[in-house]
Order: sequence, then structure tokens, then C-alpha cells
Amino acid sequence: MKPVLVLHGPNLNRLGKREPDVYGYETLSDVNARLTRRAAEWGLKVDCYQSNHEGALIDRIHEAEGKYVAIIINPGALTHYSYALRDALASVSVPAIEVHISNIHQREDFRHVSVTAPVTRGQIVGFGTVGYEWALAAVPSLLSEGEGSKER
Amino acid sequence: MKPVLVLHGPNLNRLGKREPDVYGYETLSDVNARLTRRAAEWGLKVDCYQSNHEGALIDRIHEAEGKYVAIIINPGALTHYSYALRDALASVSVPAIEVHISNIHQREDFRHVSVTAPVTRGQIVGFGTVGYEWALAAVPSLLSEGEGSKER
Amino acid sequence: MKPVLVLHGPNLNRLGKREPDVYGYETLSDVNARLTRRAAEWGLKVDCYQSNHEGALIDRIHEAEGKYVAIIINPGALTHYSYALRDALASVSVPAIEVHISNIHQREDFRHVSVTAPVTRGQIVGFGTVGYEWALAAVPSLLSEGEGSKER
Amino acid sequence: MKPVLVLHGPNLNRLGKREPDVYGYETLSDVNARLTRRAAEWGLKVDCYQSNHEGALIDRIHEAEGKYVAIIINPGALTHYSYALRDALASVSVPAIEVHISNIHQREDFRHVSVTAPVTRGQIVGFGTVGYEWALAAVPSLLSEGEGSKER
Amino acid sequence: MKPVLVLHGPNLNRLGKREPDVYGYETLSDVNARLTRRAAEWGLKVDCYQSNHEGALIDRIHEAEGKYVAIIINPGALTHYSYALRDALASVSVPAIEVHISNIHQREDFRHVSVTAPVTRGQIVGFGTVGYEWALAAVPSLLSEGEGSKER
Amino acid sequence: MKPVLVLHGPNLNRLGKREPDVYGYETLSDVNARLTRRAAEWGLKVDCYQSNHEGALIDRIHEAEGKYVAIIINPGALTHYSYALRDALASVSVPAIEVHISNIHQREDFRHVSVTAPVTRGQIVGFGTVGYEWALAAVPSLLSEGEGSKER
Amino acid sequence: MKPVLVLHGPNLNRLGKREPDVYGYETLSDVNARLTRRAAEWGLKVDCYQSNHEGALIDRIHEAEGKYVAIIINPGALTHYSYALRDALASVSVPAIEVHISNIHQREDFRHVSVTAPVTRGQIVGFGTVGYEWALAAVPSLLSEGEGSKER
Amino acid sequence: MKPVLVLHGPNLNRLGKREPDVYGYETLSDVNARLTRRAAEWGLKVDCYQSNHEGALIDRIHEAEGKYVAIIINPGALTHYSYALRDALASVSVPAIEVHISNIHQREDFRHVSVTAPVTRGQIVGFGTVGYEWALAAVPSLLSEGEGSKER
Amino acid sequence: MKPVLVLHGPNLNRLGKREPDVYGYETLSDVNARLTRRAAEWGLKVDCYQSNHEGALIDRIHEAEGKYVAIIINPGALTHYSYALRDALASVSVPAIEVHISNIHQREDFRHVSVTAPVTRGQIVGFGTVGYEWALAAVPSLLSEGEGSKER
Amino acid sequence: MKPVLVLHGPNLNRLGKREPDVYGYETLSDVNARLTRRAAEWGLKVDCYQSNHEGALIDRIHEAEGKYVAIIINPGALTHYSYALRDALASVSVPAIEVHISNIHQREDFRHVSVTAPVTRGQIVGFGTVGYEWALAAVPSLLSEGEGSKER
Amino acid sequence: MKPVLVLHGPNLNRLGKREPDVYGYETLSDVNARLTRRAAEWGLKVDCYQSNHEGALIDRIHEAEGKYVAIIINPGALTHYSYALRDALASVSVPAIEVHISNIHQREDFRHVSVTAPVTRGQIVGFGTVGYEWALAAVPSLLSEGEGSKER
Amino acid sequence: MKPVLVLHGPNLNRLGKREPDVYGYETLSDVNARLTRRAAEWGLKVDCYQSNHEGALIDRIHEAEGKYVAIIINPGALTHYSYALRDALASVSVPAIEVHISNIHQREDFRHVSVTAPVTRGQIVGFGTVGYEWALAAVPSLLSEGEGSKER
Repeated sequence: MKPVLVLHGPNLNRLGKREPDVYGYETLSDVNARLTRRAAEWGLKVDCYQSNHEGALIDRIHEAEGKYVAIIINPGALTHYSYALRDALASVSVPAIEVHISNIHQREDFRHVSVTAPVTRGQIVGFGTVGYEWALAAVPSLLSEGEGSKER
Repeated sequence: MKPVLVLHGPNLNRLGKREPDVYGYETLSDVNARLTRRAAEWGLKVDCYQSNHEGALIDRIHEAEGKYVAIIINPGALTHYSYALRDALASVSVPAIEVHISNIHQREDFRHVSVTAPVTRGQIVGFGTVGYEWALAAVPSLLSEGEGSKER
Repeated sequence: MKPVLVLHGPNLNRLGKREPDVYGYETLSDVNARLTRRAAEWGLKVDCYQSNHEGALIDRIHEAEGKYVAIIINPGALTHYSYALRDALASVSVPAIEVHISNIHQREDFRHVSVTAPVTRGQIVGFGTVGYEWALAAVPSLLSEGEGSKER
Repeated sequence: MKPVLVLHGPNLNRLGKREPDVYGYETLSDVNARLTRRAAEWGLKVDCYQSNHEGALIDRIHEAEGKYVAIIINPGALTHYSYALRDALASVSVPAIEVHISNIHQREDFRHVSVTAPVTRGQIVGFGTVGYEWALAAVPSLLSEGEGSKER
Repeated sequence: MKPVLVLHGPNLNRLGKREPDVYGYETLSDVNARLTRRAAEWGLKVDCYQSNHEGALIDRIHEAEGKYVAIIINPGALTHYSYALRDALASVSVPAIEVHISNIHQREDFRHVSVTAPVTRGQIVGFGTVGYEWALAAVPSLLSEGEGSKER
Repeated sequence: MKPVLVLHGPNLNRLGKREPDVYGYETLSDVNARLTRRAAEWGLKVDCYQSNHEGALIDRIHEAEGKYVAIIINPGALTHYSYALRDALASVSVPAIEVHISNIHQREDFRHVSVTAPVTRGQIVGFGTVGYEWALAAVPSLLSEGEGSKER
Repeated sequence: MKPVLVLHGPNLNRLGKREPDVYGYETLSDVNARLTRRAAEWGLKVDCYQSNHEGALIDRIHEAEGKYVAIIINPGALTHYSYALRDALASVSVPAIEVHISNIHQREDFRHVSVTAPVTRGQIVGFGTVGYEWALAAVPSLLSEGEGSKER
Repeated sequence: MKPVLVLHGPNLNRLGKREPDVYGYETLSDVNARLTRRAAEWGLKVDCYQSNHEGALIDRIHEAEGKYVAIIINPGALTHYSYALRDALASVSVPAIEVHISNIHQREDFRHVSVTAPVTRGQIVGFGTVGYEWALAAVPSLLSEGEGSKER
Repeated sequence: MKPVLVLHGPNLNRLGKREPDVYGYETLSDVNARLTRRAAEWGLKVDCYQSNHEGALIDRIHEAEGKYVAIIINPGALTHYSYALRDALASVSVPAIEVHISNIHQREDFRHVSVTAPVTRGQIVGFGTVGYEWALAAVPSLLSEGEGSKER
Repeated sequence: MKPVLVLHGPNLNRLGKREPDVYGYETLSDVNARLTRRAAEWGLKVDCYQSNHEGALIDRIHEAEGKYVAIIINPGALTHYSYALRDALASVSVPAIEVHISNIHQREDFRHVSVTAPVTRGQIVGFGTVGYEWALAAVPSLLSEGEGSKER
Repeated sequence: MKPVLVLHGPNLNRLGKREPDVYGYETLSDVNARLTRRAAEWGLKVDCYQSNHEGALIDRIHEAEGKYVAIIINPGALTHYSYALRDALASVSVPAIEVHISNIHQREDFRHVSVTAPVTRGQIVGFGTVGYEWALAAVPSLLSEGEGSKER
Repeated sequence: MKPVLVLHGPNLNRLGKREPDVYGYETLSDVNARLTRRAAEWGLKVDCYQSNHEGALIDRIHEAEGKYVAIIINPGALTHYSYALRDALASVSVPAIEVHISNIHQREDFRHVSVTAPVTRGQIVGFGTVGYEWALAAVPSLLSEGEGSKER
């Protein structure tokens, strides 16, 4: 099976590099490593990529077409205003899952709206870095879509 | 360990009962049964409850204090206006996870805002009924909280 | 033919019980009785139900599936905020008609918006309790839908 | 008894002239003819008038004073912005009933607000062209107003 | 000197024709007659015109170019939405004065905004039909503009 | 004299049951007991009732007609959206006083608006549970209304 | 007859003191002097007062009760936010007329709303300092109110 | 014990001076006298002060530091816009209680928001001039704060 | 081939008639003449019509059905509020192109929104009167629609 | 003559690469090639450039100064939020034309506002990829600006 | 050279008088003294004035005309609503600089908007009381304006 | 001591390159050179960097951690929408100062809001390029923070 593309947006490279007593010592490398191990356990592969550049993220999404089975994306603050990122996700046939490490609904008002969510399959919000793993676990079911059900 | 309380809000009892070609044949009983089996596999227990009455859901949340280790709740349409439900979740020390079967960000505008999300730990949105299982899987990590990290 | 379900929302049980010089002496029982007679004249049957509980109204709507040919509903103040009631009406295949006794557009601003109207077939507003009768008269045409025409 | 004035606003002359498979073959002439027959059955008379000119509709409303017992009006898109039409309806002592063929609450946002509704006695919305007949049926009760009751 | 054009918008032809105990017995003809006499006393001439048609008012404004020294206009309800009327007033070099008989700031919210006011020289609001006379009295000073002063 | 009905809305049954170091050890029972004693001292009687069900509170308000001289109500979070509760208070001739234990104006934005306040006589906000006592003390003056004065 | 009180709000004392080529050389003293002469010609008396202090203006309005037949007020920038000034005007039985020298509807957005207008009898806007004279001319008609008519 | 400062904002000096049949004959002097007597009965002292000047009220609040145990304030219309008054109340360590004689939630929209409420301990609204007495009665409990409880 | 209908809305008849140094000497007749010549060069025919009457424009749009291959419309200020014009364009099967001579996005805020744009095929904005020619040039491609592509 | 710079914003490189049955097989290369041929026919030259990077587009706009006679830009989703792109277009003296392939007014609400339009000369919207050609055709007239006229 | 006027708005007299452990022991006198010394070092003179009265501040601004070379003003909470203060600053030819001690953008929402900023030359925000010194340092450059440059 | 990082956002590289008669001949190189000299005079060092790429600015902010004592940033138009830049500034422990060359409060509405200001220490706005120097002068006081005071 083709691998899963994991995209981390702006500032996520700072994870674990500041106030470790508060945010923990886990860095983005740690998260990616753990996710890679988990993927291996589940017979999946992941490619991880971080960028602070909206354009670079869009480029990677475009390149995903035909190469990846799914995209797991934490758009960071771009979540709240990057309609270009939204259009990129909509322009490829690869399904995407949105992940947020913190509970964005407990933070500033501008973080309560996601302009990318409408073009993703679902969101996992607030469960720390474990959220990436669940997103990964969700990939197989995305591929056999029909079996889910829609809430009224 | 104490069991997990699974709360289904208004109209979720209609799941699988209408337009099965569209929404599938899976009923709420099926979902609860699958969740019960999954809990057993993972050494957990779940109590499932559905009500169309805001007050009945609040009563159950209050009773959860001291009896359950966590609450998994799909508040249905109450998500968008029931500040009373929000206050109920905030009034107990049991941590809660919010689940939505459909991707509410792809639907009507009024469904884009959750008044309960700020008092829950996290949300799992748009992954069909499988979302309940991931919420269940998240429970152990909620209990050992400290290990997660907050996104900047 | 199956009967028609007539649902009265919160506070409609107070009809005719206060300021009779202003609101008249007609009580909800009177309205229901008159509607029952009218139904009989037209070869129809009605079941009337009033509740101040949102949840109870939702329960009745769910039970209407397969038992009633149509629902006539005056949601009272729930009209303006109960998305749960809206979802209930949308969750059954029984067509619904919304009735308001007073002209809600002449009253406070919050009464100008109906969150339930989009999931009903039509509204009859401001004609006093006679509005229920017209709603009843509309039922046969709802069942043979195709003959109407849509306004541009 | 004096006749009832039936006013059709902008674009209603297009009724039945486009996409008959969708909107049916019933034209405005058909609607007026049926309404005239129905009036005759009920011992009433109707005068029907359509215009795409806001000013022409206002002129007719003014002329209605003393000549008609009631006005049945479907203001078309003027419903949503013509305060001049609203003032015209308020400037005569003839009571008015507002009719909309389609369920305007299921359409674009701008159609959810009626600036004329507050100065009419009531609205009949979404029942196709049959709505005009019910409006006609409502006329006698408008003339003996006192017997209705106001909703709390 | 060229005459002054007095324009009355929609529904002002109803003045004095309804509820004389409330609004007085003064009709629009009376107002125009009095204004004509007053103009004569002051060595001025007025042409008065009323229409319920937005387009007809615009036509008259266009024709005023070169024929009238000033326009006195009570746009009626068009005040609140007719950008076409606004553009008409801006498209001619004849200065305009806006008059409202009632105090529009004491009435419904939608009457608090005038879309035409920014393209007129000034407004006289709330002084009954006498307001037209003051507007007429203001015409000479409009023609010798420079002597006024702007408020900080 | 008839007794006073004291109504506590959703989640007020949790009073004193969580974080006693923060909120104190006073439970709702304690509050009700103290209020009952105070009433006795003042020659009044109180009936206290709490519910998490909007409908149950409405039912109690309806039953108050003719049985109670006044209603003291803390609607909890229903304060901010329950137009049905508002209508219930408006549907009975028993005067009502609104009480909030905390200063709702220091909390989240959604708590700054009360939809029930316009149909009550007054509000006592932010004085802890003592507010109920002052509301009780206010009852006699509500019954001899005329002596107060309105602020400009 | 009692005199008329002319009140000038904040910054109107700067009139004519800056950029005379733009605003003219007419100072507030000039305006007051001209108004005093005009009053004499018309058999009226005026007392003129300017203050940059909201409180001082309110004090003068209160003192006007029983001493003045009318108030002519240009509240300057207080027009747009001083609800205290509004309440002062409403607290006395002396009728008030609002004057603005410039056309406030052509200036910044915040100047388009007047919080004082609803409690005055009328407004004269945009006619330079001549507006005060017309307001003075309007005083007699304010005192014999009944003869005006209200616009529909 | 130090006395309590009672501050009355703009226009409250007009109390009882207009329309006595509507507002009663009770003047501000009467209110202050009654409050003084009541204070004496309760072993308290009050100093009463009224001003129409925002700045004067702020000056008095500053002077209250160290001289008064509490401030009872009815800011009149300043309630709705004076952030300077709000900051003054926040700048002293003397606790404040906000009183409104009328039920401001039944009046114009602009009166529904209080910018000072968030920096006071609580509000007493709508109980006529008796509200000042309850505010006075609340002072002792403000000084022994800890015993109250916060509403969930 | 059938001709193209060119519609000019309110005030466009004033083109070239005022401030020729600013707006040029080109009148609407000039524009129409040039457009007629251009059409002839391209083997097309145009019928040009201007009206200041919303209703007259709607009438012409209706009459276009079956007579014209396309409509080129500059709705003038009606662009910003005439939902009736919008409905007229939607009620015929003739495709429409919207033209604005000036760059409406550089002007007042109210000109930034077009209520007619959603029911036209495209807009040409800000290129002066040449815009009409391009609209004309676009007509052939409208008729062979399928070859264009939609932007992501 | 210097060439014209054609800039394509984010995601336009995906043109023709997905759902060819819907969007056609025309790729961005095809569009650029056709535009280059058309330019040659008209004696013009074009340089085409696409980027998903806001910064790269800004860089190219800056470099256009003195090298290009005009810029034709389709900013993609940046249209709706990139004030930096807007400032870039304003910072050079090269005139710009905005092109959108689809009719953005028929799509999501956020696409109805263009933050770049106010600093361009005009917009061509909704005519598919042909719009670029018309923009190119417009370049000569931009260079001899004075001959156009502004719409009232 | 003429001196610089330093104006401190409402509540700034409380500086250093409360919670010295938090806000420091520096009082307004200290600030003024330091500023006076700094002015002397730089060959400048300052006059410092504080008032809690909007009107008094306006009076001082007016008096500054011709007497001061510049105004340094911290309007306190008046920053957010005093259009009268704004007009005062605009009514004199003396340039003004706005200073805020705290970072108002980190505080309540209402503090994020300054109604006075548009009529001042610049703002220095968030640098504590040192901000006044920089404002003073800026005065000479204000007087030789031309050398600065405007940001695009 | 470590140097200070000076960051210039999009379009600031155009400084002095256009309309020198308006904006002056000072280029960004000139500004940087002057700032470098000033730093040297004050015993400080600066590193200056400009980019039109949001991502590149974020990268530089991240790299500043541990290398610079402070950041002086003029985010250009990113000020108004780049939450990613805001998060970058918040993600490092290096304090930041925001500089704007022009008075953004005198320009378009969208420039009145800064999304980055809440995470900087302060702003210097409207003083031309001298503002950078004052920001530099502020750096030492940022490092010995405690001595400032917060405005009430």
C-alpha cells in the first residue's frame, strides 16, 4: 500500500523546545518517530514533513496525488485563514484528516473556526500528540468508506 | 476500574432507521453493542444511554460523578445551543470527550459552533460511528494526562 | 388513512387561561375539539398532544414514523432555538406543517427567525387558531405533492 | 360584498413558462382562473393583477382603499427589501395576507426575511399555488377578527 | 430665477387620507398649495410632483438639470434602500435638500439610516409638513454657498 | 398569604458538591433550608424546587398561577437561551424575580445576556446565595407595586 | 414668552478660529450674536451657552425646566455616544431641536448615528450656521404642535 | 466603621420632579433621607452624592479609597458607555454594588449592556428605589466575603 | 442568429452629460452606436435599452426569452439591492453577462456586493465602456459553453 | 513594447489534472500556450508564472516594475485574504487586471470578497480561461487610459 | 521654543497608589518629575496636567493652540469612546502623540480600538511610563516632518 | 550582549523606490544602515532581514531563540491576518517590539487591527522610520522589565 503523508504546519517544529515543564520534552522528531513505529506495527508507512511556509505545504499536498493513500495534517495557525491550503486539499483526490494537539475551542476566539475542516474527512482535536496516531488508525476505514454512517 | 459512560443526545436513536441505503443499516443498538465488545477487548466497561431530553442527559452527567472514569458524549443538536449541558459537563470532575459521527463543518452554518467543546478534553469529528471507539481508546490516556503535550 | 399528529409546544396549554378579554376564552381543549370535529367532517383523524418538554415533543415525532400521514406543529418558543426539534422533524419521513397563532413578524426580533421552518413543508402564520384547520386542509395535497408548483 | 384584490409581484408572470417538468404547466392565468372559480363557489369575488413594477403595485394598493375588503399579496422578491411596499400596505385600512408559493425558508438566506410581513395579518408559505386559495378562505375571518386568539 | 422642484416619494399621496384624527386633515395637495403660496411670497416658484415609482422619480431628477435651481425631496421609504435614487441625485448638478415629515429616528430601526443623505446638502427631519417650507427658505443660501461654515 | 415559589434551574443541584474549598460547603439544601427559616421569620412561606429539565420548570411556573404570590427563579444556563422559559414566566400573572449567585457579567460573553430578564420584575446578581433572601424580602413590595419609582 | 436656550456642545467654541479660508471667519460669538438679533426681530429671546463638559450641558438642560420654552442643541461629538445627554433631554418637558452645522452623513461612519435624535422633536442638518436660525423659527410651531401631520 | 458612599449618576437629580403621577413624588432627597435612616437603624452611615459630571463621579470614587467601606452606585446612562467610570471603580480597593431603579432589560437595547458591572460585586436591578436599601444591606456580607458561594 | 439584448440600468442615461473633463464626452448613445458597429463587424446584432425603472428592466428581460441569444446588463445601482432583477435574470433561459464601467471595488462599501452576479455567467468590471464590447465578444463562447473550465 | 506578466496563484497548477470530465482537459500549460499564441497574433508578448507561495508572487510583482507593461493576475484563494499581495500590487506602477476563471459569486461566501480588487484596474470573472485573453486584449487600452469613462 | 503639553486622562492619578508590589511605586508625580528632568536635558520644557474630566482635557487642548509645540496625551479609557476628545485634538494645529503605558492589545476587547489615534501623529503603546519619554523625544522630528517616510 | 534582530515584512523592500517626492528617497538599505550606526553608538548590534515570505519570517523568528536579545518587527500587511506569525512570536522567549512606519489608524479599516500586537511587548506606530530607532532604544528596558509600571 502507498504510504500516508503527515504534514505539520507553521511553528510545530517548536514542539518540545520551549517550557518543557509545561509542554513536555516530546519534540516533533519524537512524535514523527513514534508515529513511524506505530505505522510499522500496523503495516502502514508514513512520510512526515513540516514547514512554516504555506506554499511549501500546498506543494506537498499536490505531489501527494497518486503517491499517498491519505494525508494527516495539522495546519497550525493556517487552519484559521488559509483558504489556499483549503483549496489545495480540495484539489487532490487523496482524503485528509485534520489533527490539533490542543483543544482549540478552549483558546482564543480566532482558533474556534477552521477553514480547512470542510474539505477534510474529519478532525481529531485536543488529545495531544496521540491524536496523530488515531488519525493514522483511521486511514484504513477511509479507504473502505461506505461502511460508516452519517449522523442525523 | 470504573466504567465509561457513553451518552447519545437527541435523535441519535433514529440512527439506521431511515434511508438505510444512505445511512447504512447500523442502528444505535448496533453501535452500542460493538462499543461494548470493543471495551471488553480492551479491559474496559461501558454504560450506554440515549435521551432526547436535555434534562435527562444532565441528570446522567451529574450521576456520573464518582461512578465513571470518563464520559463519551455525542450531544446531537444540543451541541449548538445547550449551555445547560455545557455547565453540567463542567460541574463534574469526570473528563469528557465529544464525538460527532458526521463532519459538522461540512453542514449548515449553525453546526460549525460547539458550545460544549470548550469544557471537554477533545473532539473526534466526522469518522462515522468508529469515532466512539477512538474516544474509548483515548480514555486511558485521559487518566494519565500529564504525558500529552499542548500545541503552540 | 392514518391520522394526523397535532403537536403543541411549550406554553400553548396556557391558551385561553389568561386575560380572556384580550386572548378570548378559547382554550387548547377547545382548539383540539374543533380540529377533531373538522377532521371528522373531512374524513380525517387527528391526535392532539401538548408538552412543555422539548424531549417529549421529539419522542412523539419519532413515534409518528409509520403511524401518521402528517404532523401539524406549533413549536411555540422552541421555534426560535431548538435545533434538536428541527433534527427530529428531519429524521422522520412524515411531512410537517408549521403553524403560529400570532403574527410572529410583528413581535420581538428573536421571534422573526424559525429554525424549524426549513425542514417543514410550509408555514401558516398569524391567522389565530384557524391556522390549524388550514394546515389540516393542506394534508391531502401534501400526500399528492407533485401537483403544486414552485415560485421563482 | 366588495371583492378581494390579488396582487402578484415581480416575475410571477413567468410562472409555468419555464421548466414545466420541474415547476408544472400551471401558469399565472391558470392560478387566477382557479382562484376566480373558487371565489365564486364561496360567494366571493377576486380581482387579480400582476406587475413587475414596485410603483404599480403601490398604486394598486392605494386604490384598494374602500374598494376591496382584503388584499392577498405575493410580493415576490420585493418581500425582502421594499420598504415602500410595506408602507403602502400600512397606509390603507384594507387588511392584507402574504402568500409565498415556495418555502422561502429553504432557499437563500436573503429570502428568510420579509419586510412586509409585519404589516400583514398573516402569511401562508410553501404550499404551492394552493396557498392563494387558503388566503382567500381566510378573508371572512379577517372581517370578523375578534374571534381569533393570540398565541402566547 | 428657475423654479424649485419638490419631489414626494412613495405613499406620500396618502397624506391626510387616513386617520385624520391622528394625522390631521392636511393632504398632499394642501401641502403643495401652501408651499406654492409661500414660494410666491418669497419670490420663488415651485413645481411639485409625487410618484410611487422609483424610476419616475429618477427621471424627474434627471430632467431637473438646467431647469431647476434646487430639488427638495422626501424620498419616503426609498430613503432607506434606493441607491438608484441616490445615484440620480448625485448625477445632476442641482443641489438637493432632504425632508422627512416625521422624526424618523423615533421609528423602526430601518428608518434610522438614509442612503440618500450623503448626496444631499442637508436634512430637515421631524417638523411636520412645515419642513418643506424651511427647505424652500434654504434654497437661496444653497446658491451662495460659500458663506456657511463647517462644524468641527 | 400564599407562599413564594423558589425555582432553581439546571445544575444548581450541584451547589456545594464540588471543590468545596472554592465554592464553599453550602449545598442547595442548605440554601433552601436557610431561605425557609428566613421566610418563617418574615411571616412568609416558600416552596423550593430544582430541576435540570426546562419543561419541568415551565410546568411548575404554570402551576404557580393562583397558588403563589411570587416566583423567585435562578434559571441557571437557561437564562441565556430558553425563550420557552421566558414565555412561561410571561404567561402567568405571578410576578417573578431573577437571581444569579455569581456576577454573570464577569464571566463568558454568552452569560452577559438574559432572555428571561425582560419578563421579570428585577434581577439580583452576584451576591452569592444571599441574593435569594433579598429577592424574598422584595416580595411584599412587589405586591404593593405602586409605591416604587422608575428611573429616568 | 420665556426665552429659548441655545446649547453648543464640545469644540464648537473653536468655530472660526482655525483655517478661516476653509471654515470662514464666523466665530461662535458671531453666530450667537446673529441669532440674538434674529430672535429680537421675531419677538423671541435666546440665551446661548457653550461647554466642552457633558455634565455642564446636562446641568443646563435640567435648569431649563420651567425657564425656557424650547432648547436648540448642537451636541457636537456627544451626539454619537452620550446617552446621559439623551436622558437629560428626555427628563425635562421642554421640547428640543437638534442642529448640526455640517452634513454629518457625508463624514465618518461614527457620525451617522445620533443617540440624542430620538428624544428631540426634529433635526436640521448640514445647512451651516443658518440651521440655528431655522431651529429658532421652528419654536413657535413646536408650542402649537397639534397642527402638524405625521408622515406615513 | 467607615461610612458607605452612595453615588447617583447623571439625571438622577430629576427623580420625582417630573410626571409625579407616573414616577411618584419621591425625589432623590427623599431616597437619600430614607437611606440615611435605614443606615442608622442598621448601625451604618451613608454619604450620598449626585453628579451629572462623569469626572466628578470618578473623583469621588478615587477619594473613597480608605474612607469608605463600600460604594453603592447607580451610574445612570454612564452605565452603558463610561469605560472611565469602570476603570475608576477598578482602581480602588473599595468594593462596589451597582443599582438600577428600573428594569433596564425591559427598555431600549443600549440599556441591556453594563460596562461597569464586570468591576462591581453585584447588581440590583428593577426594584425601584428600594434597591438602594438592599445594596446597603449587602455591605456587611461584602466585608466578610468568603462565606458566599459561586454559581456553576 | 438572434440578437443580443443590451440593458442599461438607472442613471446610465446620464453618461457623458456631466463633467465631461472628468468622465469624457462619450454619451450612452455613443456607447450604443459603437457597440452596434462592433456587433456588425463580428456578425452579431444588438438591441440597446436603458431605463431608470426596475420594473421596465424586468419586463425587457422576460421578453428576451426566445428572442435574444444573450443579455448584457449593467444594472447600475440596482446591482446592490434589486433581488427582483436577480429573479428576473434567473427566470429566463437566456444567459446574462454583468458589466460595470467603473471599478466598483474602489468605491463605497455598498457597491462591493452584487446581488445579481450569482445568476449571471460572469462579470466584466472597471474597464470603462470597452467592457460592453468584451461582453459582446464573450457571447459566442457562452453559446458553446462546454469548452471552458472551472477554476479550483 | 515590454511584455505582459501573467501570474497564476495557488492551486492553479492543478488545472485540468483532476476530473477532466468535469473541468475539461485543458491544463495550465495549455492556457499559457494559447495565451502566448494570442499575444503573438496581437503583437504582444507574455511571461507566465505560477506559484503556490504568496511570497514568490510578491517577489515577481516587485520585479515587474520597469520590465512589464501590465500584470494579469489570478490570485486564486489569496484573493480573499492576502493583504500582502494587495500591497505588492499597489507598490508598483505597473497596472494590474484581476481574472477569475469561475464565477466566484456563485460559490462559498468567503469567495465573494476580493481584497486585491481595489488596487487593480478591473476584473474579468466567470468566463473560464478565455478571461485571460480578454485581460490581455485590455492591456493596450490601459496604457492609453484617458479615453475610458467612469460610470456614475 | 514653546513647551510641550503632557495630558493624562482619567484614573492616571491613581498610578502607583495601589498594589505597589504589582504596579511599582512610581506615581504620576514621579513620572511627571522624570519627564521634566528629561525635557531639561534635551533643551525642552513640559507642562503636565491630569484630569478625570473629559471637558477639562478638551479645554486644555484648545488652550494649547499657539502656546505649545506639541501635545503628548494618554487619554486613559476615553481612548475608546470619546469622540469629543478626538474632535478637540483635530480642532487645533498642535500635533499630538498618543501614549499608552500598558499593551492595550493584550487586554479586554474594548481596549483594542482607539477613536483618538486617527487624529494623532503616532502611538507608543506598552512600554510602561518610558513611553512618555520617547514621545517627548519624537517632538523635534514632528516639527521637521518632511524627513520621515510613509510605509506602503 | 547578543544582537537585536530587525525583521521587515512583505513589501518593505519597496521603501523609497517609488514616488520619492511623496515617500522620500530613503530606501530600506538606508534605514538599516542608519539603524546599524545608531546601534553602534549605543553599544548594541543589529541584524536586519527582509522577506516577502511569511514562512521565511517565521523561520528567522525561530532561529532567534538564544541568538538575539530582542526582535524588532514590522510585519507589513501580515500584521492584519497572519496568525502563524503571531504564533511564531509567541513560540520563542525573545521579546518582540512591533513597529509601523505610517499611522495605520488613519488608513483602511482592515489596517486598524493587529493580530500580532497581543504577543509583542509594545507598538511604535506612525513616526516614520525613526520608529525603528526608538524600538532599538527600548531594548535595554525590556531586559530589565520589572521597573516599568502597568497603566490602570
